[in-house]
This record gives sequence, C-alpha cells and structure tokens, in this order.
Amino acid sequence: MNVKIAGHAGFCYGVKRAVDIAMNIEKNNGIRAYTLGPLIHNPQMVELLKKEGLMPVDDLEGCKGKKIMIRTHGTAPANIVKAKEYKCSIIDATCPYVKKAQKAAEKLYMEGYAVFIVGESDHPEIKGIVGFAKGNATVLKDENEVPLLEDIHRIGLVAQTTISENIFAKVTRKIVPEVKELRVFNTICSATKNRQISAVNLSNKVDVMIVAGGRNSANTTRLAELCSQACKKAYHVETSEEIDPEWFLKDDTVGVTAGASTPDWIVKEVVGKLIKI
Amino acid sequence: MNVKIAGHAGFCYGVKRAVDIAMNIEKNNGIRAYTLGPLIHNPQMVELLKKEGLMPVDDLEGCKGKKIMIRTHGTAPANIVKAKEYKCSIIDATCPYVKKAQKAAEKLYMEGYAVFIVGESDHPEIKGIVGFAKGNATVLKDENEVPLLEDIHRIGLVAQTTISENIFAKVTRKIVPEVKELRVFNTICSATKNRQISAVNLSNKVDVMIVAGGRNSANTTRLAELCSQACKKAYHVETSEEIDPEWFLKDDTVGVTAGASTPDWIVKEVVGKLIKI
Repeated sequence: MNVKIAGHAGFCYGVKRAVDIAMNIEKNNGIRAYTLGPLIHNPQMVELLKKEGLMPVDDLEGCKGKKIMIRTHGTAPANIVKAKEYKCSIIDATCPYVKKAQKAAEKLYMEGYAVFIVGESDHPEIKGIVGFAKGNATVLKDENEVPLLEDIHRIGLVAQTTISENIFAKVTRKIVPEVKELRVFNTICSATKNRQISAVNLSNKVDVMIVAGGRNSANTTRLAELCSQACKKAYHVETSEEIDPEWFLKDDTVGVTAGASTPDWIVKEVVGKLIKI
Repeated sequence: MNVKIAGHAGFCYGVKRAVDIAMNIEKNNGIRAYTLGPLIHNPQMVELLKKEGLMPVDDLEGCKGKKIMIRTHGTAPANIVKAKEYKCSIIDATCPYVKKAQKAAEKLYMEGYAVFIVGESDHPEIKGIVGFAKGNATVLKDENEVPLLEDIHRIGLVAQTTISENIFAKVTRKIVPEVKELRVFNTICSATKNRQISAVNLSNKVDVMIVAGGRNSANTTRLAELCSQACKKAYHVETSEEIDPEWFLKDDTVGVTAGASTPDWIVKEVVGKLIKI
C-alpha cells in the first residue's frame, strides 16, 4: 500500500497557539485552568490536556475566582462580562482569525447593517460571533436558507472561519439582487482553505482517503464531505483504531488528511497503521 | 394576430424627467439648450427634440456661455468643472438612479476601496461613474473579466443601472472568495429590473416578441437579448417601419416591449402596425 499525506493537514496556527498557551500556564494543585467548553474540537487531544491539568467546564458556575481559558472558537462578550463579575482571571485563546470574524460582526452591527452569518447555528464559534452582534444576527447554513428580504436594504455578511468558500459565495450571489447594499467580510481562514484545496487535490489522485479528526470538528467534517465528493472512497476516523483493513485493496494508494484540530501524533498513528496494512 | 404589451415598458422615471426638464427650458432664438451627447438613447426622440431646440453636441468646445444640459446617463465631474470654466449655465438631467451609482463609486473610492464597476466600458453612464471614482475604476463586462486579485484585499462594487442582475450577482460570487472585504452597492434600477421581468414573462407566453427602442440603448439591447432567450422569435426594432410581415404566422400571438428611453408614440406605432398585419 502506498500512503500519501496532504500538503496542508493537521494543527493550524490558532489551534497550535491555543495548546501552547495552555501548556505554559503554571499548574496549581495539578490544575492549569478551566476551559469554557473543550479547548479544541478533538476529543483525544482534550483527554490528553485533561491529564495535563486543563479542565473543560460547561459554564462558569462553580468557577468563581478561578483561571478561565477561552477556547479557540471564542465566546460571546456576555461570558467575558460574567467571568469578570466572578473575579476569574481570563486567558484568551480565541483564534486570531475567529477574532476577526467577531470584530467584523460587531462593526457591521454598530454601523447599522442587518448582520447575517454563514455557518452552523449551534457551533460555539457562531454563538460567539452572534454575541458580538449583540445577539442580533441571522445564521444561514447555506444559500437555501436566505429568507425573503423585503424590508432589509443593507446587509452585512460574515463567515464561520471553517466553512466552504463555494457556499459563502453562493449566499452572496443570492442576496445581492435583493438589497441595496451588501458588505461582505470574507472571514474564512486561509488554513481552512489550504486544507480543503490540498484534500481535494489528493482525493483526485488516490483510491481511498482517510480524514483524521474529531467528529465534533466542523472543519474536519467539511474535509470529509469534500473528500467523499472527490474520491471513490473516503472515511472519517478519530483514531487509527477505527481503520478497518477491509476498506483497502492490496495495491491501493491511500491519501491522508487531518483537520485543523487534529494533533500530529494522531496523524502519525493513522499513517503507521496504514503502512502496516 | 393577437398583440400583448408588457406590463412594464417604455419611458422610465429618469427619461420622462429629463424630457420634462428639457421641454420646460425657455427657447432663445429657437434653441432651448445644448446637450452633451444625446439626451437619451433613442435616435427618433432625439430628432424630435432637435426640432424642439435641444441640440446635441459632442463636447463643450464652442459652448462657452451657453446653456448645457447633462444627459440622463450623467457625465464625469471633469466635464462639469470645464462647463463652469466656460461660464455655461448647467441644467442637470442626470437620472437620480445614475446619480446614486456615481455617489456610490465616489464613496467607495474615498474610503479606500479598489472600485470595480460592472457594465459596458464605452457607455457614457460608465464613463461618468468612472469619473466619480477619480478615473480609478476597473470596468468588467461580466464575471469572465474578473482579473487576478492577488494584491487587492478590499473591493467596492457598483453596477451600471441597466445591467442584468444575474451577471452582477455572478461577478460578486466570483470576487468574494478572492478578497478580505467586498462592499457591493446594487445600483441596478428598479425600472430596468421590472422591464426585464415583464419582458421575460411575456416572452414565455407569446410566439413572437417585438422589442422597440434605440439600437444604442443598453437597456433595450439587454431586453432584446433576454427575449431571444425566452421566446422562439424576438426582433429588436427602432421604429414600426422595420417590422416585416413575414416574421409572423396568421394566428401568432405577438408580445411588445420597449426600452426605458422609447417614447409612447413609437410603441403605439409598433402596436398599430402589428394590428394591421
């Protein structure tokens, strides 16, 4: 079996930065900090970080006076206000690209635009961005969710950092004829774009694609979708253990890619298992 | 033969306004004013206006101290400056919708955007709008003319008032993935939109479409293109004299539409001739 790895795969700048920040927090009774939700969307890495003293919590109750780390996906300003009320010390690991999307939504809201966001409404990144538009934003999964815009003349549009450019572009195309002004901040991050392009290029050249990363990771799931479209066979796995030798023929060439929150050691284990098969 | 007229056809608000302004200028030795280029893009109406003392000129030379009328399509600010230097009295009949496009281009330029305009580069409306962006604008006919945008991060986009919404939307779709910010002012006028929708609806119901209006009229030419796509047979004529009885079968239903600069009497003559056939 011949194994090829995508040119762009695995940890992106924002995820690497967040893990670095976390690991540099001093331990206190074995605890480095509490993260509001998982720091990144990779269950294996989050388990490892727990052992290193980084504890995910669902909300701020019970965290008064403690060190609170804001995850890569960011959070709504209301949570920062609450953390301050609770006298928490705040360590902000929001990805700088997510921060740009938050600031774009805030600016558009402040300048009187109706704010629209293309992304997944239940994703923590989107919940955070909506918060920066003071809760006044419409979230669209794709162009089919663009509503009737009869009384809306000025729309401001931002993107979840990890969505497909094609969907974002289709939404703009659908909105433009319906309004007087459309101001678009293309907040899709280049890491997402590069991973998607590399994954599709590799998918076109191999017999099977393996996409490694958290099932709760939006960008990994999107990579798996794109690989399914471009390759005969594509599998999304969280760990090497999920790989089934029956997926492959003897002379297959297998491509490997990984989401922006998938650590190197998972990619290495996946490649190692494939080579053994 | 059954003749049907499109719900929206003929003189639009801006054209009617310009003709009204022109006809209210007092004559002086048989001359009302000089227009910088034809007042509207309809040769027959321009001939009629000449007899009424409205004289088109190609440029301002020879017009010192005279009454100068700015056509519906507007003009570049440099021409206004020159007319003032020449002590002309200026009567501005720029269509208010064209003025919105001019102001949008000026605002985008002043706010540091790279200005792009979707339209016909040699059309007087576009030459005027480019002038409002201090000459620094890129004109695109359609999405195929979008250039490589490697070093351009913020684009401001406006439309010729008479272009197709579909082309405008396709251009936005093509630009969005390539830039950080795209600010779009949809300056297509509702008269254009309404005439296009009415013309296509009627085209779908009739055997032959007749589109009346100047061959130099952008919006009429666009109507004729849309009718050709939606109807088996479509003909663009300037006057009733061009209509050939051989175009029709005995029981045909014929649809009639007319550009925004086509006067009522031309539409009436066209319908009259069709009924006689």
